[in-house]
Amino acid sequence: MSGRVPPRVAIVMGSQSDWPTLRHAAEMLDTLEVMHEARIVSAHRTPERMVAFAKGAAAEGFAVVIAGAGGAAHLPGMIASLTHLPVLGVPVQSKSLQGQDSLLSIVQMPAGVPVGTLAIGEAGAANAGLLAASILALSDPALSERLLAWRQAQTEAVAERPQD
Amino acid sequence: MSGRVPPRVAIVMGSQSDWPTLRHAAEMLDTLEVMHEARIVSAHRTPERMVAFAKGAAAEGFAVVIAGAGGAAHLPGMIASLTHLPVLGVPVQSKSLQGQDSLLSIVQMPAGVPVGTLAIGEAGAANAGLLAASILALSDPALSERLLAWRQAQTEAVAERPQD
Amino acid sequence: MSGRVPPRVAIVMGSQSDWPTLRHAAEMLDTLEVMHEARIVSAHRTPERMVAFAKGAAAEGFAVVIAGAGGAAHLPGMIASLTHLPVLGVPVQSKSLQGQDSLLSIVQMPAGVPVGTLAIGEAGAANAGLLAASILALSDPALSERLLAWRQAQTEAVAERPQD
Amino acid sequence: MSGRVPPRVAIVMGSQSDWPTLRHAAEMLDTLEVMHEARIVSAHRTPERMVAFAKGAAAEGFAVVIAGAGGAAHLPGMIASLTHLPVLGVPVQSKSLQGQDSLLSIVQMPAGVPVGTLAIGEAGAANAGLLAASILALSDPALSERLLAWRQAQTEAVAERPQD
Amino acid sequence: MSGRVPPRVAIVMGSQSDWPTLRHAAEMLDTLEVMHEARIVSAHRTPERMVAFAKGAAAEGFAVVIAGAGGAAHLPGMIASLTHLPVLGVPVQSKSLQGQDSLLSIVQMPAGVPVGTLAIGEAGAANAGLLAASILALSDPALSERLLAWRQAQTEAVAERPQD
Amino acid sequence: MSGRVPPRVAIVMGSQSDWPTLRHAAEMLDTLEVMHEARIVSAHRTPERMVAFAKGAAAEGFAVVIAGAGGAAHLPGMIASLTHLPVLGVPVQSKSLQGQDSLLSIVQMPAGVPVGTLAIGEAGAANAGLLAASILALSDPALSERLLAWRQAQTEAVAERPQD
Amino acid sequence: MSGRVPPRVAIVMGSQSDWPTLRHAAEMLDTLEVMHEARIVSAHRTPERMVAFAKGAAAEGFAVVIAGAGGAAHLPGMIASLTHLPVLGVPVQSKSLQGQDSLLSIVQMPAGVPVGTLAIGEAGAANAGLLAASILALSDPALSERLLAWRQAQTEAVAERPQD
Amino acid sequence: MSGRVPPRVAIVMGSQSDWPTLRHAAEMLDTLEVMHEARIVSAHRTPERMVAFAKGAAAEGFAVVIAGAGGAAHLPGMIASLTHLPVLGVPVQSKSLQGQDSLLSIVQMPAGVPVGTLAIGEAGAANAGLLAASILALSDPALSERLLAWRQAQTEAVAERPQD
Repeated sequence: MSGRVPPRVAIVMGSQSDWPTLRHAAEMLDTLEVMHEARIVSAHRTPERMVAFAKGAAAEGFAVVIAGAGGAAHLPGMIASLTHLPVLGVPVQSKSLQGQDSLLSIVQMPAGVPVGTLAIGEAGAANAGLLAASILALSDPALSERLLAWRQAQTEAVAERPQD
Repeated sequence: MSGRVPPRVAIVMGSQSDWPTLRHAAEMLDTLEVMHEARIVSAHRTPERMVAFAKGAAAEGFAVVIAGAGGAAHLPGMIASLTHLPVLGVPVQSKSLQGQDSLLSIVQMPAGVPVGTLAIGEAGAANAGLLAASILALSDPALSERLLAWRQAQTEAVAERPQD
Repeated sequence: MSGRVPPRVAIVMGSQSDWPTLRHAAEMLDTLEVMHEARIVSAHRTPERMVAFAKGAAAEGFAVVIAGAGGAAHLPGMIASLTHLPVLGVPVQSKSLQGQDSLLSIVQMPAGVPVGTLAIGEAGAANAGLLAASILALSDPALSERLLAWRQAQTEAVAERPQD
Repeated sequence: MSGRVPPRVAIVMGSQSDWPTLRHAAEMLDTLEVMHEARIVSAHRTPERMVAFAKGAAAEGFAVVIAGAGGAAHLPGMIASLTHLPVLGVPVQSKSLQGQDSLLSIVQMPAGVPVGTLAIGEAGAANAGLLAASILALSDPALSERLLAWRQAQTEAVAERPQD
Repeated sequence: MSGRVPPRVAIVMGSQSDWPTLRHAAEMLDTLEVMHEARIVSAHRTPERMVAFAKGAAAEGFAVVIAGAGGAAHLPGMIASLTHLPVLGVPVQSKSLQGQDSLLSIVQMPAGVPVGTLAIGEAGAANAGLLAASILALSDPALSERLLAWRQAQTEAVAERPQD
Repeated sequence: MSGRVPPRVAIVMGSQSDWPTLRHAAEMLDTLEVMHEARIVSAHRTPERMVAFAKGAAAEGFAVVIAGAGGAAHLPGMIASLTHLPVLGVPVQSKSLQGQDSLLSIVQMPAGVPVGTLAIGEAGAANAGLLAASILALSDPALSERLLAWRQAQTEAVAERPQD
Repeated sequence: MSGRVPPRVAIVMGSQSDWPTLRHAAEMLDTLEVMHEARIVSAHRTPERMVAFAKGAAAEGFAVVIAGAGGAAHLPGMIASLTHLPVLGVPVQSKSLQGQDSLLSIVQMPAGVPVGTLAIGEAGAANAGLLAASILALSDPALSERLLAWRQAQTEAVAERPQD
Repeated sequence: MSGRVPPRVAIVMGSQSDWPTLRHAAEMLDTLEVMHEARIVSAHRTPERMVAFAKGAAAEGFAVVIAGAGGAAHLPGMIASLTHLPVLGVPVQSKSLQGQDSLLSIVQMPAGVPVGTLAIGEAGAANAGLLAASILALSDPALSERLLAWRQAQTEAVAERPQD
């Protein structure tokens, strides 16, 4: 992930406990050969680290930020308030309310500060990786080809009939 | 908390549209003769103003912060991440989900960063004023007397029988 | 993305009744001087028009698709299944369930087919315009400047104190 | 299931993981001796296979389509948009929201494109089989007899008193 | 289903107050020239009338029953327990819970007694009419033609672009 | 209500699978020495048995009916439509929606046909037993004494401090 | 329960604003000629009045208590904790959550302290009156006759067909 | 609040089964060296003990009350009705509705009687301890230092990157 070409996608999360969900974003980006970097940036426990990260994300060379959090999930929206880069939000499944709180805390942003929100949990994290790739592919024909191939393979992998 | 300037309560909100709700906190504090100040501090549109406010709130002489917001309501929790003062959260009733998003975004904070959350809407704002007063009354016997008198008057105002 | 014709944003919706919501996306794109085009494409009443639109969207020169729908809102997800372009979904407020059905029908996509979902209603539509602009701005420095200026103006427009 | 008499009921689902639910539809149809055929047809991963299936279902000899899916469950509604055959929808229980998303995505169809929706999960799948049989029984007196007998047996199987 | 008396659809509802919703089923059936009859049959206030109706529905010549009710909506499920005819349920929007109670009371039937449930409110009622027609059309080629024509007209009525 | 045979409580449920919940009603009535009888009476699978039971319940000597069911839980409301005896409803916890469907299907009865509804699950069943006892105690002083003693013992059993 | 003073029903509510709902209980009891008395007893504003009322309710001659409240509705459950009389709870429709909070606060009582809960709002209040009457009718044959007549009239008032 | 005995925090809960949740409040207070005491005080099973506790809490030397309960959770609100001390509420996760009932029963208090509500479950209990400490720290500089140190340590404990 190091080298002359800076990472294009940042994957940030509120705590280590979100990583089993967010790693699905990282794995999708690996599959599509998109450079990325994962960091723990807690809106609540490290608010100043979060501000510094968000304000510097464009200068660090990031083009898209994927942010995941659970419960009163403020990380995606707060990063979106501090950078003009596209921010994608992943609601992590919470213990008591199963991600309903995470989803509403991320998606219901007021006009002016958008977060493109994906599904609750692992599927949402994988899809954040895919959506980030589709955004970068707009100006990266080779990535566009890899994305199309991945989609084609996905289609072809669907069996005709269910197996007992 | 001692000195010539009595403890004050900050009432902050995300936008002008939250004021019809939050003014009920201000009115309650007026009634109880508690000094307070209302400001617009948007977590999403003015994140740096919010950081500056929250980090400086104790130095400004505030003892309690009442924060209200609607939808993906991040203001109370973000202020709580940046000050050790007690933070009370008021979920403002939202348009489509009627405050369910506001409530969950405020109350479901992770361990480590508490927000004492009140009811959705005007009742919650009035109660934030009362709770702030009860906190300040712990070291202000005169306020404690006023609070007890207010509660007594409230009790006495309840009629015996419903009127058609 | 290069060429004389700048990238455009498609705004599609299931019916005329969604336009009062989706026009907020169009207005935001107008403000940011992003070319866009609005069409009615119903997943349920014109499924073949939808398939043709989605499969041809990239060739038509669209770079981002904003899709809005209400109730059992299938349009954003179906378009995402038929194009590799980034698709942003806007849940339109529904009559009986106030957009909870719209939101879940759009955001809970399975792994493999992402829709970046915004808030229910007008705020979500405006934010879809903003997010589309932030995506296009990644390869359009002039748009990036306009977007930054818009965000700066938004921040500066926030008053210090609420007005009665 | 092959032979001169074409299958009467199609059972389609979004993925192999839906089969443990949908097989209850197949088993009910087996019990009632109604010919049926199960296929994987994903609205999101194989949209063109879905279009081809739905448009050709009547010509293939199907009379009723049972479609099951989970999460942002678009399959039943999309098939209903592409065929005039009766479509019955089965919400598959989802991981985080337990089928509430599946249910609303299937049942809240707009006027013009109906899906007759059954309960979330296995009970709903079995009932889709029963409802398909009751539809076919309208013009199949022998099936009507088998259905009546099945219902009678169900009634008689209910014990008088609970057993510890 | 052949003979001088064509198949008919029964439209039953719990009270007069459900008629503004259920009349949309009647109007759709009128449009498609399907004979139908509307009655008030309350599960709770006229349980014996309901039992008599349901047990006699097939003998009366009804082929499909559309049943609508709100709140703790028991009518569709109870009719389905008393007839082997296909029963379609329409959740009527309720006052305090907006039809969520109606929907769950109708759709969550246990295995063995199916109700094909449509959307909450007027759209669901219209769709119940359409689904009943599609069921009857399986053995009525002329109705099938009318249904196809109606669907075609619906598709053609969708404008290309939204109008301000 | 006087005579050699004391008033009895009927405990009815939709299926054997409800007994692990409803037995808590029976056990409470045993504890309070209230005669009771448990039967399986399914609104959906044995509707005519249900009608016969409900219409004959008063003549059989029952004074109160406790009815429990899950999902689209119609049993309590339907019994209440067929007897003037007090009917108490117990929502059984359902698989996918955890009893929210059961609760709404039982409690949201229209004006004219009441069901006194208890909490979801075992606590609700035990409380149905208690409430039935409190109803019978109105004309049974000895039962009233036993109920008061049970309540007193419950109060005394509450420890002063939690134990690790 | 015999003697010159017939059993009475207490109707208590948290505030004057609940009376438009609870008066439907009073009107039903008037219709059935059951003596009753309405009082304002707030669990939160007059907790000691509430304790005094609940502890003295049996001695005052009340046989059944109907208690209505909205929001965090503690009145029914607290009265049930302080009297062995049957307590019926009416969830008053709340402003932001439309009675969902009222319903859950009343119905989800722990094992040991039952509240027989009716539907949200006016229908629930009317039904609380009916259920109270059915309880008193167990030892009052004349009331039982009036209740049966009322139910019969209700049944006969249901029209055969809906009117435009 | 002055004198040799420092201010104390009362931790009260409805039953022993709430202790695994509430002990997180006690542990946080231990960590911050705040004196506290835990008691079982059931609103429903020991209402008079609750009244006595709440009315005497200030005289006993308590400055803040943390109250936790589940289901129809009346304890925090009832204590708040009987003392002018600040009351913090902890919704305990319930069995069937996972704490949604607990949360709404605690937070939706009417104007006049506030409860500062924390998140559902263990995180909420720990945060109640923190919020109580932040309240007491307003007049206890040494506690304020310990609280700031604890927050600082929490911030420093957040790793930079997630670990597989």
